[in-house]
Amino acid sequence: HGLGVDPRLDRSRPARPGRAAAEAAMGRLRPASMEALEPLADALPPAAFKPANEKYLSEPRNRHSAADGIVLAPSGAAEASLIIRHCCEHRIPVVPFGGGTGLVGGQIGIGIPAPVILSTERMDRIESVDAEENVLAAGAGCTLESVRSAAESAGRLFPLSIAARGSSQIGGNLATNAGGIHVLRYGSMRELCLGVEAVLPDGGIWNGMSSLRKDNAGYDLKQLLIGSEGTLGLITAASLKIFPRLRDSAAAVLAVRDPAAAVSLLSLFRERFGSLLSAFELMSGTGLVFLAEAFPEMRLPFKRIPGWTVLAEAAAESDCGLAGMLEQAAADGMDSGLVADGVAARSEKHAAEFWRMREMIPEANRRIGAVASHDVSVPVTAIPEFIRRADAAVRDLGDFRINCFGHVGDGNLHYNVFPPRGLAAAECASADVTGKVHELVREFGGSIAAEHGIGRTKAGEFASSGDKELLKAMRRIKNALDPAGIMNPGAVLTG
Amino acid sequence: HGLGVDPRLDRSRPARPGRAAAEAAMGRLRPASMEALEPLADALPPAAFKPANEKYLSEPRNRHSAADGIVLAPSGAAEASLIIRHCCEHRIPVVPFGGGTGLVGGQIGIGIPAPVILSTERMDRIESVDAEENVLAAGAGCTLESVRSAAESAGRLFPLSIAARGSSQIGGNLATNAGGIHVLRYGSMRELCLGVEAVLPDGGIWNGMSSLRKDNAGYDLKQLLIGSEGTLGLITAASLKIFPRLRDSAAAVLAVRDPAAAVSLLSLFRERFGSLLSAFELMSGTGLVFLAEAFPEMRLPFKRIPGWTVLAEAAAESDCGLAGMLEQAAADGMDSGLVADGVAARSEKHAAEFWRMREMIPEANRRIGAVASHDVSVPVTAIPEFIRRADAAVRDLGDFRINCFGHVGDGNLHYNVFPPRGLAAAECASADVTGKVHELVREFGGSIAAEHGIGRTKAGEFASSGDKELLKAMRRIKNALDPAGIMNPGAVLTG
Repeated sequence: HGLGVDPRLDRSRPARPGRAAAEAAMGRLRPASMEALEPLADALPPAAFKPANEKYLSEPRNRHSAADGIVLAPSGAAEASLIIRHCCEHRIPVVPFGGGTGLVGGQIGIGIPAPVILSTERMDRIESVDAEENVLAAGAGCTLESVRSAAESAGRLFPLSIAARGSSQIGGNLATNAGGIHVLRYGSMRELCLGVEAVLPDGGIWNGMSSLRKDNAGYDLKQLLIGSEGTLGLITAASLKIFPRLRDSAAAVLAVRDPAAAVSLLSLFRERFGSLLSAFELMSGTGLVFLAEAFPEMRLPFKRIPGWTVLAEAAAESDCGLAGMLEQAAADGMDSGLVADGVAARSEKHAAEFWRMREMIPEANRRIGAVASHDVSVPVTAIPEFIRRADAAVRDLGDFRINCFGHVGDGNLHYNVFPPRGLAAAECASADVTGKVHELVREFGGSIAAEHGIGRTKAGEFASSGDKELLKAMRRIKNALDPAGIMNPGAVLTG
Repeated sequence: HGLGVDPRLDRSRPARPGRAAAEAAMGRLRPASMEALEPLADALPPAAFKPANEKYLSEPRNRHSAADGIVLAPSGAAEASLIIRHCCEHRIPVVPFGGGTGLVGGQIGIGIPAPVILSTERMDRIESVDAEENVLAAGAGCTLESVRSAAESAGRLFPLSIAARGSSQIGGNLATNAGGIHVLRYGSMRELCLGVEAVLPDGGIWNGMSSLRKDNAGYDLKQLLIGSEGTLGLITAASLKIFPRLRDSAAAVLAVRDPAAAVSLLSLFRERFGSLLSAFELMSGTGLVFLAEAFPEMRLPFKRIPGWTVLAEAAAESDCGLAGMLEQAAADGMDSGLVADGVAARSEKHAAEFWRMREMIPEANRRIGAVASHDVSVPVTAIPEFIRRADAAVRDLGDFRINCFGHVGDGNLHYNVFPPRGLAAAECASADVTGKVHELVREFGGSIAAEHGIGRTKAGEFASSGDKELLKAMRRIKNALDPAGIMNPGAVLTG
């Protein structure tokens, strides 16, 4: 107890919001140990105990947790409740762990006493698929891909799609309000969820597995848990909206002059396709060059890589002649000087090649090795000016390569900065690229955490630059629901 | 001070969750009076003081507030902050007041010390309409109709539509997460809102007027405020999503055998139209008979009123041949025995007649005078069985007439019960119709407050029959954000 306070006395005092309270709460936490978890050894089956191997201690961007932690994998809400209740009583930190694909360190307990790493991997059952009701119920540990497959087997669509869909889990998708490529049409996880089952920080089980489309009875606790990154409770299962299958679709890659042309083209496409527009992605020439370097065997749609490329897709539940509509829209884009060149998908397989190109960009980036990565959003119409200003600012800082790509329809850019050809990231990482980029994001009224969340990587910056009233309200809510401060301490909110 | 506790001492003690705390909080509130509000007299312009006339003290279902209250109408967040900060310091209850069209008494301070009635009427400016960004910013006091008109003037659509759109206000629409007839396609207010400006219960102004489509920086405080019925703060302005204009639409009224046929027909329509299906409303024969009684001049689409009627509508941003598609879908519905008869709209004017019929049902109900009204939801596929069981249960209780209508696609039914012909509601109101109907709703996993909210009317029932973990979490959140308990006391949460 870093502050020398008797925890029994201290516990009855309400936590004050703010930095001091957060630090005090962290100081009061005790490390997990087999000894401290002894009563759970009898209560949980052997299968719930997992070795704390690398998988649970590192994350995709190579951050690594020093604290070993103890990995517990409950089979469902009842076992999770036992664990969290015990941890609450003994002030042991709990770090929820899903597919481990998060990019902001929310899933690894850096800078806290050794936590219970609470893995959702055993909650991997698709509980039901009701095609008539258009609802799918799944355990938190189901991978996104398994949910998509289960929906498809029932003649339905679960539309959320992110590159990590094969390993990321539904619980983590909800905790981080995952977005991806179809937000434009179907919304983020927040819009796709009808209900959740969750274990709250005191161990109470909330059965909110509703399949109701409308329910205004009380505060929307589900919406508060979604996107709270495991700091307000553990989602153990969810009921999700599923949709009619798509029977008509059309995709094209279109070379555009610049980001301004991409935004104007989006307007044109929104007018034409409305709710049938299902994706509108922007890729920089640098991204395609990276792909060509990293995957020389990959077929790119253009012989000469354009400065900027858009991947547009429309889809409908019945035959709407989308291919013809897309061809016409692209032609009109050419006539008005927005589109320089274009290739329409000739088949589903061809369209899948376009998507593979788009989805392999992060992997190509990883192989090149970024100096700094940014997951930001700005108003859609501000995208061109933001990119222009950010490019200038970054080039002022040094001879960097910039790969900017993302979801134009959502104003969401992955603005990633790389060393000049021939240099490694470590050799030129001194300039404060992120400080400069995020400063611009704020100037444009944007977000420094558009779809990946705050996690631990951005918690410090969020604490100092986030809206003061929002932070105050968040701390009050956190202290009210988790006065012991055990749930994912250090993530989202920190001192 | 009912409990004889020195409020200054008492204030430093954290409120405990639960009934006792709620009652204690209510006991600590002080009535508003010109004396108690004196410092505001200097700080606010004369225009902010309104006479506390009938408009502010009664509501559409004829409940009436005994406490007079003092009506203050701030011009924006700054003035609202002065008022709420003062009320927080002096523990004076604040009841937010929008268009006054709420149906559950959330807007009138029954059973509390005389409140400040905080009217949003002066915050009635459309602040901006950005057709390129597809965002509209409006003060909380703008009527829903004025927001719809402003969007339309810019060639855009704001899709929320409820019968009270001419007088209900955006702030109230958000506070109650209003739904209406287009939820099927566009979602409720919750899905249509990108950001809010709000005054929190301590008087702090949160500027959350974001126009970002993706923002995962911190808890979604906006989603917590939406649907909290003014108990966690006052929404003073909002930025709202607007959509491309619709260029093709088709509507039809279809006579169906029974609610089961309506639900099967919905499945067929969802498969065919997908995201283009914009409304699917159910009306009982009783409702049409009431219309014929109340408005003899109204033209009804069928000569002989069918037992059940569906009003279906599809709409698209470009010409999709929806009229033909709808005709085909209706014909297929006839072939499979789901549809007995049908009339397609020949023109927009004709479609508007269908909608007028649907939207005048509540007014016809009012003229007949209900014994009990219910705003419930159940899973969509449970609708037929729910109606069958509820009808039987209500008829067991007496010789009632039942007018059940609503939004089939959302599982949302307005299940309203009327006296037999020739009797007034007061003459047969003794049977516990609501108790029976709500008991069934719970049995079906439904909600007793689907779209109108909990307000004061349902707060007692919600406290006793709502999910215990949800209620506990709600009380913790309420106490954390509003420890003085001043914001709309008695609404949503009560002892």
